[in-house]
Amino acid sequence: MPEFAVPTPKRGRGRPRAGESGSRERILTAAVDEFGELGYDGATVRGIAARAGVDSALVHHYFGTKADLFAETIGSPIRPDVQVPLLLDGPLDGLGERIVRYLLEQWERPDVRKRGVVLMRSALGNKLATPLLSGFLARELLGRIAASIGTPDAELRAGLVASQVAGLIVARYLLKLPAVASASVDDLVARVAPTVQRYLTE
Amino acid sequence: MPEFAVPTPKRGRGRPRAGESGSRERILTAAVDEFGELGYDGATVRGIAARAGVDSALVHHYFGTKADLFAETIGSPIRPDVQVPLLLDGPLDGLGERIVRYLLEQWERPDVRKRGVVLMRSALGNKLATPLLSGFLARELLGRIAASIGTPDAELRAGLVASQVAGLIVARYLLKLPAVASASVDDLVARVAPTVQRYLTE
Repeated sequence: MPEFAVPTPKRGRGRPRAGESGSRERILTAAVDEFGELGYDGATVRGIAARAGVDSALVHHYFGTKADLFAETIGSPIRPDVQVPLLLDGPLDGLGERIVRYLLEQWERPDVRKRGVVLMRSALGNKLATPLLSGFLARELLGRIAASIGTPDAELRAGLVASQVAGLIVARYLLKLPAVASASVDDLVARVAPTVQRYLTE
Repeated sequence: MPEFAVPTPKRGRGRPRAGESGSRERILTAAVDEFGELGYDGATVRGIAARAGVDSALVHHYFGTKADLFAETIGSPIRPDVQVPLLLDGPLDGLGERIVRYLLEQWERPDVRKRGVVLMRSALGNKLATPLLSGFLARELLGRIAASIGTPDAELRAGLVASQVAGLIVARYLLKLPAVASASVDDLVARVAPTVQRYLTE
């Protein structure tokens, strides 16, 4: 079982009325089991609903899509799978900068950084949790970036974008390499965005 | 305490004679304690010797430098702190390629990959182990790269090299993002080396 803790539900769609919180918590517990046993791709909303003894429609009502439910389950403080595809809507030129700036500005928020570090530690430190995160990223984030790039090697290009962005977050917020941790967001964007842009389009 | 296991000593300087193995093991145990309590920079060979109840000269005799002893303590399968500075001896032009190729070729060896993944998981997953690894990297590897670069921003440049290389290793060997995990070493070197070279010299 991955070591993702089930968070106290806080960010669901509306405050649960009396009697609803039991269903919500059963769904979250069922989601942890389903994702843990079947991986991100193998898990289904239908399967989670069955484990929780509720209808699939109730899962969608409380939590939205499978990606939404996964993000809620792991307590993700940001939603790159939602935000980065929005950044893809702009011109391809400058996309590298928009991606690097978005992620750094989010991680600069103390609440995001605190929760993000815990999540990265779980995802990278636990051999059962790692494929769960990579399954989610590959399906919900990198696939969309690759589709925007549109070249035959687009999947590799998207993966290299992920490698640089993940490496930057590891170096700045986990390893805290002094020069990388103390650099300004603007300086890092100026230096790293051309790398991401090159992977995307050159 | 970090969760680095003390490995059975195998790679020391010569086979221990009868009666020596006790001292070697006491030194390794003392090193785990000293590094864990004081961090990489704070630990000293003298302090480790005192904890083990032996003379500093015996520590140097069995294990060499503090960096050698640290690598032995964590069971590191490769020595980038030794090898990468050797790569710095060649022309700066092409250094990015030499660094990326060296690290990928090492990680392609099954024994290195297996042990390296365990080590990366410990170092990134454990909040006490992480600063220990980053202290070692900053002192023994990035400082030397920065000295070779020689610009006022050299430490940041070296840190960004580390971010891309670490991110590539995380993406290929831990997250195993499909396109990155299945790419050839040559293809990855061709795509990633220009990034590393740009951080080093442009």
